[in-house]
Amino acid sequence: VKAFFNEGFIDEKNACLHISDLSILRGYAVFDFFRTKDSVPLFVEAHIDRFFQSAAMLNLQPGHDKESTRSIVHELIRQNGLAASGIRLLLTGGYSNDGYTPSTANLIVTQQPFEFRQASIFEKGIKLVTFEHHRELPEAKTTGYVTAITLNPFITGKGADDVLYHTNGSVSECRRANFFIVTNDGVLVTPGDGVLKGITRSRVIQLAGGSMDVEVRKISLDEVYNAAEAFVTSTTKRVLPVTAIDGRKISDGRPGRITAMVDEILQENEEAYINHEFGLNHKISSYGPANHQPLR
Amino acid sequence: VKAFFNEGFIDEKNACLHISDLSILRGYAVFDFFRTKDSVPLFVEAHIDRFFQSAAMLNLQPGHDKESTRSIVHELIRQNGLAASGIRLLLTGGYSNDGYTPSTANLIVTQQPFEFRQASIFEKGIKLVTFEHHRELPEAKTTGYVTAITLNPFITGKGADDVLYHTNGSVSECRRANFFIVTNDGVLVTPGDGVLKGITRSRVIQLAGGSMDVEVRKISLDEVYNAAEAFVTSTTKRVLPVTAIDGRKISDGRPGRITAMVDEILQENEEAYINHEFGLNHKISSYGPANHQPLR
Repeated sequence: VKAFFNEGFIDEKNACLHISDLSILRGYAVFDFFRTKDSVPLFVEAHIDRFFQSAAMLNLQPGHDKESTRSIVHELIRQNGLAASGIRLLLTGGYSNDGYTPSTANLIVTQQPFEFRQASIFEKGIKLVTFEHHRELPEAKTTGYVTAITLNPFITGKGADDVLYHTNGSVSECRRANFFIVTNDGVLVTPGDGVLKGITRSRVIQLAGGSMDVEVRKISLDEVYNAAEAFVTSTTKRVLPVTAIDGRKISDGRPGRITAMVDEILQENEEAYINHEFGLNHKISSYGPANHQPLR
Repeated sequence: VKAFFNEGFIDEKNACLHISDLSILRGYAVFDFFRTKDSVPLFVEAHIDRFFQSAAMLNLQPGHDKESTRSIVHELIRQNGLAASGIRLLLTGGYSNDGYTPSTANLIVTQQPFEFRQASIFEKGIKLVTFEHHRELPEAKTTGYVTAITLNPFITGKGADDVLYHTNGSVSECRRANFFIVTNDGVLVTPGDGVLKGITRSRVIQLAGGSMDVEVRKISLDEVYNAAEAFVTSTTKRVLPVTAIDGRKISDGRPGRITAMVDEILQENEEAYINHEFGLNHKISSYGPANHQPLR
């Protein structure tokens, strides 16, 4: 499998960072992650936009502009020939002389096989347990997952699948997913502050907004426990129903009707995106010095 | 310069981590840092103890026990011949198959030239600006410094040298240093909760406790502004006087008498430690398969 490293494509197994890199010494790095389906990188523009926003919040300068980054992604897909995959963009603080001050950022783009979840996972849903915490710089997609990973034994001990973070009585997000509820009045609600602005989250707000009321606002723990439905969204999961929180069933403890509808809307939107990209493919140039070879 | 990497000594310039390491992908790593003076690693037992505590908080298993880690440090000092240096112990989450789950930890030990601060830095003191924040897992020395580093422009803009974190009205610590005040009653006070348990901080509490009252408790911002003296402690700085906080002078804005006394006590203690280690040196074995070569 090939990876892109700063200026060119190399074998992924040779993609190493010197230990003076600030991602290693100071956790100073941002990333983004998206799926490919039928070799199409899903919503890649939105992910690259967010990647650049995350970089700006850490004062990191990517060495390639957005268009060039997109060409790198397409060329990586072409070279690896992995139709269903996950692609990670990673930008680090660079090799630091004093182990603290950022320098020229290192850009790494990797691809790995990724099969989308089975339908049975959706039918089963997931259980959450709440935990008081707010992520550092929540709107930047940094590599800071120390709390998330150290919570594994706590989550397992509670018989849950993931954590729902809350602070000052309001819930925010899960460890790697955004959180939504459907109220008993049929309104779709998701927190607006202190959360990562997920690409799937944005698509839900936009697409579901066409057929139902959507509110972006604070949600109390109490409102969560009494919701008609709850679900999480993420690039890797799309939509997953939440069937219980802190051991309390959400409604009857089965995936909700609106949750399933939202997942269907997203799936249709994904397919429309793929069809649209196939139509455009001859226009997208691949990465290279001359930068005008056709993608396929 | 040589570095130690998992099982042996290599050129530091070849010390690289594959990009699947969780320090890179998830900021999942702990470290420690201490000085050497006259080739003696200062308070190395305390630093190794804390390094192992940090590792345990992240469920990371170091591949070497404490005694072996100490032998690695001594052998690195012998190989590099750097008398005045900084030594970093780094333990990462390891190469992860799924980019999220920790595996076998990677241990890296590096050494770099380090000259201790000039006396003029002490005489000048430093200025702090307060910022509401608490570090994630503050008692583990993780590599999480995203907030610390992104605060640089804020600190410069305020004409300050460092940040003093506070939360819920109580101060905690600086970005890479612990914080003390001397009250108008001559009591030395430092926060006890939500801070990294600095090795220099512990030495201050222990050594100054012989000649003055020491309290480990919450300190309000108001108490800070009205303190008789304030100073920070760290391995690299030992003691530095704080002359102003949020633009308000501490007392007359000059380094305090007790601050200078604490620095002197620490310096004497350092020298005693070095003399003691010189006496013991023939007993400390260096790292190696047989593990019983004499250090020098």
